[in-house]
Amino acid sequence: MDLKSELEERAKRFNGELQKFLRGGKPQILYDATRHLLIGGGKRLRPCISMLSCEAVSGDEKKVMSFAIAIELVHNFTLVHDDIMDKSHLRRNLPTVHIKFGEPTAIMAGDLLFAKAFESIHNIKDDDSVFKKLDYGLVKCVEEICEGQQLDMEFENKEIVSEKEYFEMIMKKTAFLFMFSAEGGAIVGGGTKEETDALKEYGKFLGLAFQIWDDYLDISSNEQILGKDIGNDIRNGKKTLIAVHTLNNVSGSDKKLLEKIFGNKDASEDEVRKVFDLFKKMRSIDYARKTAVEYCEKAKKALDVLKNSDAKQVLLSLADYSIKREK
Amino acid sequence: MDLKSELEERAKRFNGELQKFLRGGKPQILYDATRHLLIGGGKRLRPCISMLSCEAVSGDEKKVMSFAIAIELVHNFTLVHDDIMDKSHLRRNLPTVHIKFGEPTAIMAGDLLFAKAFESIHNIKDDDSVFKKLDYGLVKCVEEICEGQQLDMEFENKEIVSEKEYFEMIMKKTAFLFMFSAEGGAIVGGGTKEETDALKEYGKFLGLAFQIWDDYLDISSNEQILGKDIGNDIRNGKKTLIAVHTLNNVSGSDKKLLEKIFGNKDASEDEVRKVFDLFKKMRSIDYARKTAVEYCEKAKKALDVLKNSDAKQVLLSLADYSIKREK
Repeated sequence: MDLKSELEERAKRFNGELQKFLRGGKPQILYDATRHLLIGGGKRLRPCISMLSCEAVSGDEKKVMSFAIAIELVHNFTLVHDDIMDKSHLRRNLPTVHIKFGEPTAIMAGDLLFAKAFESIHNIKDDDSVFKKLDYGLVKCVEEICEGQQLDMEFENKEIVSEKEYFEMIMKKTAFLFMFSAEGGAIVGGGTKEETDALKEYGKFLGLAFQIWDDYLDISSNEQILGKDIGNDIRNGKKTLIAVHTLNNVSGSDKKLLEKIFGNKDASEDEVRKVFDLFKKMRSIDYARKTAVEYCEKAKKALDVLKNSDAKQVLLSLADYSIKREK
Repeated sequence: MDLKSELEERAKRFNGELQKFLRGGKPQILYDATRHLLIGGGKRLRPCISMLSCEAVSGDEKKVMSFAIAIELVHNFTLVHDDIMDKSHLRRNLPTVHIKFGEPTAIMAGDLLFAKAFESIHNIKDDDSVFKKLDYGLVKCVEEICEGQQLDMEFENKEIVSEKEYFEMIMKKTAFLFMFSAEGGAIVGGGTKEETDALKEYGKFLGLAFQIWDDYLDISSNEQILGKDIGNDIRNGKKTLIAVHTLNNVSGSDKKLLEKIFGNKDASEDEVRKVFDLFKKMRSIDYARKTAVEYCEKAKKALDVLKNSDAKQVLLSLADYSIKREK
């Protein structure tokens, strides 16, 4: 089984449905702004998880598409607003929405994507009670993401963040939507309570592994592969698991060094390098890698209760990929 | 019947429920930001319309509260984001959310209010099919508001805007939410199709009258009463009904004068005054006033099919107020 082609095939079918859903709309500039990032691509990881979860409980892929669209629109709405907050200029190698369309239109394009996500679940052909459950789950996703994003911002100005606080933040900011992508897919697919709970667990652990691996990649890979400046996270005092691990275990002169440089916007490249070396010395980079691997194992273990299927194999393979990918 | 006290009593009961709904939440800064504008007050016009519409069809006020909260949260979410877009510093005599909490938190506070609106309708105790209808209506409100707001922005850079385009814009930006406030209140109250349609019509015409009267007030009243700079609308080339009327009917040297000053950010006070005088000469201010009065009459007429009740009397009186208010 080739994971890449399994995902690409599903992403292709998904993109067809997404394009149908997002066609047209006036004023055109606003609708072009909502489509800008979405058409720009992305791996469609979350919608693929919904489709695979539906499939893994013997559900009909056609039926889950509107739910998968809702998930992807929520994800993209948060990206559009995050890019404004972070003043990011590039995303998926394209100018961000606020750079291309201006900030006012970008704020509204995000709001419109949010509304369209909730519109999409109205297209799911199922009982009103199922609709209500999915609608509520999606509301909670947005609330959790807002809270997680705010925590992430606040952490940058906090001297110390515990591991517990870090995990709470990434659970909200990233893992919750992964979790609901899988859970909702299973619900639409008509999965039993046991199957749905298993896929929910899978999504949660996969999301955690995914976010930690992102942090790990940011720091361990070189600038070219990620297209991102490693130093920025150090200069901004970003509380990744790596930073949190070092901050909570460092002492003596290393601690003083860290306090001086970490979160200092004007830190030189040489200073950034020193913090990077300290992360290595404290074995924090390795710790983050190992933690991601553990969550990947937990994600796979959660699927034990599911009967075997192609979809289950793809989900297992996707978990392995989440801690092997280089971008 | 004293309209002011009728509205104030309902607003007071509404505020009690709203405060219960918005209590607590973490991270505290984010939740404080969502409460900032809401606690700052406002007339609660839209929730009052929902409550009165429910009452006018003999519905239970308690049952409509969660819907009224959803409406007010959607309204406030759009205000928070609008203030960022317009770079406004003051709202209801308080610093705007982005001025007090910074732009990133304000963007998220708006998003969270949006999500909370959809959460609130989950608290309505009614059939799942009623829930689904209200949820869909609320989605459409947000989509219409986004489209209307974008049109309003685009109009500032358009030389000419027809009356038809102007009405499409205010229908989306303002009247749609008024319309759904009334319609949804009637639905929750168990109104018949005829009653619900009548209240929907009432809400639509009231919203149109309200927005046109707002434009009229901006230009006809003095700076002190409104706490707003009249000249800004002229300098920004804002397409109010007054401006649209003059633009579509002016000719000769007056037209040249208008083209030179209207939408010119650097226009002097003397120049602004000249445009103001031109609006008067073209009878556009009077035209806007008359149009608002006509919509007010249509709003009242729509209620003919309702049996008489205290709530109906308050709604009629509210329509009259919408074209008498001075702020």
